Amino acid sequence: MVRHGESTANALNQYTGWNNVGLTQEGIVQAHVAAKKLKGFEFDHVHTSVLKRAIITAYIIQDELNLNYVPITKSWRLNERHYGALRGLNKDRTRREYGVSQVHLWRRSFYSIPPQLQTPDPNVGPYKYLDRRSMPVAESLYQAYQRIIPYYVDQVAPRLLDGKNQLIVAHGSTIRALIKYIEGISDQDIDGVEVANGEPLVYDFDSKLNIINSNRTKK
Amino acid sequence: MVRHGESTANALNQYTGWNNVGLTQEGIVQAHVAAKKLKGFEFDHVHTSVLKRAIITAYIIQDELNLNYVPITKSWRLNERHYGALRGLNKDRTRREYGVSQVHLWRRSFYSIPPQLQTPDPNVGPYKYLDRRSMPVAESLYQAYQRIIPYYVDQVAPRLLDGKNQLIVAHGSTIRALIKYIEGISDQDIDGVEVANGEPLVYDFDSKLNIINSNRTKK
Repeated sequence: MVRHGESTANALNQYTGWNNVGLTQEGIVQAHVAAKKLKGFEFDHVHTSVLKRAIITAYIIQDELNLNYVPITKSWRLNERHYGALRGLNKDRTRREYGVSQVHLWRRSFYSIPPQLQTPDPNVGPYKYLDRRSMPVAESLYQAYQRIIPYYVDQVAPRLLDGKNQLIVAHGSTIRALIKYIEGISDQDIDGVEVANGEPLVYDFDSKLNIINSNRTKK
Repeated sequence: MVRHGESTANALNQYTGWNNVGLTQEGIVQAHVAAKKLKGFEFDHVHTSVLKRAIITAYIIQDELNLNYVPITKSWRLNERHYGALRGLNKDRTRREYGVSQVHLWRRSFYSIPPQLQTPDPNVGPYKYLDRRSMPVAESLYQAYQRIIPYYVDQVAPRLLDGKNQLIVAHGSTIRALIKYIEGISDQDIDGVEVANGEPLVYDFDSKLNIINSNRTKK
């Protein structure tokens, strides 16, 4: 699992969520660095969100590894957590406006939902065939988790159980949700889990999907 | 949406859930009757569970309508609610053993979970590629709903939004969960919703998936 390289919104210290922003020059470099760390790996399938910061990162990694031919599935279910009315806002400004502890809750509490959009975004582009009741107006990490895990169960786990290696290129909250599920981390402890841009997280599973080995550093 | 014809377990008044039982003669007749009620409909896709009472019902309907060629997707997500340790037990005996009101709760309360299996069933056959953490040991209707709706959102709604007619052949609780989602019925009111074997339930949607027309009789 790889978190996309730095985005233009990361660089501006903004909440992003489902905003479709590109990578910075630094982000592109991070994607290449991630690819170099993955040298020697082979994948049978690549999974990514429908957001271009993840898709471009996946393309860079596939190109570096000469695995451009590997099929890629792009799903809204792997999108970043939807930050509701906070998206596009500067994080420091949000802390001044709403207070440090409220913002900490929104960012880190598993069940806390940020301020909602007045109306969901229109069903266009990647969301054209998505039931509009599934278009979020804001998500807690819990709600994002409920959206993300069915994708893992339906698209990733069956291929793992069939012995296939896979690459998931996604977002901070997406990967936190996946780590929570894969490692069985509690609602409280997931707070402390951080995911850096472009740092590949590798899991080896046995034939029952028990973790044999992982490079994730626990604090 | 069609609930499968009477199964051998229905005929014995047993809890069935994920037990893979066949249809009775009466169940086969019900499937043909359902097909006759659907004369004139055309489908672009058929969805069913991995349980043969639903699959055989789907085959009978497709054959009667001369739509055998229509692609069919079979998913564990459309399985009946998992009745845990109650499965295979006679419903009257269960009432005598556990009491009428407890059994009513298990059957009808949205959040009530029946007694669990000691261990989940083995990951074989249709569940070979299913992460074993997704193998239920018992489900409330709420838990079944959480499993079923992602299938609707990922596989059914996108085709509806693309203008495709579809047939879902499934189970009592599966169809109740789908009705709850499609009609936006509350956790309390879903209690009163019944689904008869082999009685097609038809919804017409507008381009935003609002219901234009339905033959569901509300009590």
